[in-house]
Amino acid sequence: MPADVIPLPRKDNAPASLEPMLGLTAQGMNAVNSVILARMQSDIPLIPALAGHLISGGGKRLRPMLTLAGAELVGYNGTRHHKLATAVEFIHTATLLHDDVVDGSDLRRGKAAANIIFGNPASILVGDFLFSRAFELMVEDGSLKVLKILSGASAIIAEGEVDQLTAQRKIDTSEEHYLQIIRAKTAALFAAAARVAAVVAECSDEQEQALDEYGRNLGVAFQLVDDAIDYDSDAAAMGKDRGDDFREGKMTLPVILAYARGSEEERAFWKAAIAGHRTSDADLDHAIALIGSHNAVADTRARARHFAQRAIDALSIFPDGKARQAMVQAAEFSVSRGY
Amino acid sequence: MPADVIPLPRKDNAPASLEPMLGLTAQGMNAVNSVILARMQSDIPLIPALAGHLISGGGKRLRPMLTLAGAELVGYNGTRHHKLATAVEFIHTATLLHDDVVDGSDLRRGKAAANIIFGNPASILVGDFLFSRAFELMVEDGSLKVLKILSGASAIIAEGEVDQLTAQRKIDTSEEHYLQIIRAKTAALFAAAARVAAVVAECSDEQEQALDEYGRNLGVAFQLVDDAIDYDSDAAAMGKDRGDDFREGKMTLPVILAYARGSEEERAFWKAAIAGHRTSDADLDHAIALIGSHNAVADTRARARHFAQRAIDALSIFPDGKARQAMVQAAEFSVSRGY
Repeated sequence: MPADVIPLPRKDNAPASLEPMLGLTAQGMNAVNSVILARMQSDIPLIPALAGHLISGGGKRLRPMLTLAGAELVGYNGTRHHKLATAVEFIHTATLLHDDVVDGSDLRRGKAAANIIFGNPASILVGDFLFSRAFELMVEDGSLKVLKILSGASAIIAEGEVDQLTAQRKIDTSEEHYLQIIRAKTAALFAAAARVAAVVAECSDEQEQALDEYGRNLGVAFQLVDDAIDYDSDAAAMGKDRGDDFREGKMTLPVILAYARGSEEERAFWKAAIAGHRTSDADLDHAIALIGSHNAVADTRARARHFAQRAIDALSIFPDGKARQAMVQAAEFSVSRGY
Repeated sequence: MPADVIPLPRKDNAPASLEPMLGLTAQGMNAVNSVILARMQSDIPLIPALAGHLISGGGKRLRPMLTLAGAELVGYNGTRHHKLATAVEFIHTATLLHDDVVDGSDLRRGKAAANIIFGNPASILVGDFLFSRAFELMVEDGSLKVLKILSGASAIIAEGEVDQLTAQRKIDTSEEHYLQIIRAKTAALFAAAARVAAVVAECSDEQEQALDEYGRNLGVAFQLVDDAIDYDSDAAAMGKDRGDDFREGKMTLPVILAYARGSEEERAFWKAAIAGHRTSDADLDHAIALIGSHNAVADTRARARHFAQRAIDALSIFPDGKARQAMVQAAEFSVSRGY
């Protein structure tokens, strides 16, 4: 871990790991994976073929894991959260399928993106199917409160996606606007995924709110780090096309910071690049060098640490124990990813 | 009306018209239109701009009208159905937005399609927004029974869309498979739209089922006529690109019938055309001539009359009156469209 990364306070000083979270939720995730497999089936063979390509494509399933971890944290003993965690993963998968069409992506999680193998039309329509299936699962659960949380999150995600599209290739996008976009497109589902655990366990409003804040801040931290890694010269391979954000003219925080801190000449470069006139490998290398010279990746990670810390502090109302420690480590891990 | 069109039994012998249905639902549709306008708003200006292009683009809003007509039929006096009719229209609009991207359509309702003006990414993402917003509206209504009906219909629609995509360019698609596709992609929403009227009015299961059957059969008839018009040499302008189905290799009933009844030479033409090797205007003219020579448009309309008659007969359990007569005429009108 480079010297500029300040570890978040934890009892031992070992590097943060997702392992405790994976261990905590292993049994529950087996149940969720069964529901995922069962409920992505259809008499139309293209549906499980395409959904399976992405769903079995090596994702961490972090979002349903949040629902399971939240349930452990509050001592929930039922099984309702398995269907709801599946609904959360289906909403996420539908979003990924549509995102890859929107961005014209070639790779997803290191494999050919579904739209490349099955075509854009199939990706759009199977995304719609998974989205509908997610709602069926929630309706089967039968809690209007859960339905309100997850349908609200879905609408906010869609708004965030449109907002991101609107901001694309706009060099004057502010950090505040960027944060608004990632709160909507990413953090809203993290928040809802964690929150529904408190709802099925019939927790107090305070506990529900605390899980929501944990998920929301974790989601912001997670997206910030994702966006940092796309310009991180030291980062391990991400499983997506390196420089995708750059070539798509996405205004992520590393670019926003480098542009704000840049000379006139550098700003001219960024204007041209974000407008789509600098897309070569040499241009990408230049962009990464500029971002490095202004510490924009390190500072994006520092912003992520702020949100991860807020996520951790939101858990303070819950008793210490295996679940809380796993969730704390997951938040720490989210900001150390890619080193 | 050509001589081969057998009018469905009705008290007077005037041509069928949508006017009684429009009159019956005029006041309710004003309320629904207000909800539509209010609920397609968002802080992201692209959302109301794009949604408004399609929503104010001259559609008949037949599906929400079915909810309102059903409510009149069963004497419902509340206002819950206004939000639900809006949800139905939003699901439909989302489907249209995605369909136009999937098909690469240039025109919709005689105007440039949204994807042409705003681009495919915006159409995909605003479709997702409308879909999410539809669910928010249903959740606000708060009936799990309504949610089950509409979320179930949404999943069936999405399956039907994928099924249609799978059957595209497949010359060996059967009439049964085609009917299965249109029952899913079109009739399921018609059925749900009509059925929810009975649910909000707390009708008997029998009445609920009858409204479902009315909507379902009307939806099949409606789609059959839509597909007939695309090859009808006499049809009035449809507001979509003439010959779209032909060039996209869609296996609709006129083609299925003409292929089944064709000579070896004609079948060779159809195989090439559906595979995408015959797409010129002359090829389209030849296709229309072949379809005409086998009465395939007239017989597609005859199939539609069968379903329209079933829709009408499903209403027999309700007392005669203004509402039932309007719904009977709407079914008759659905099969006389385009003459």
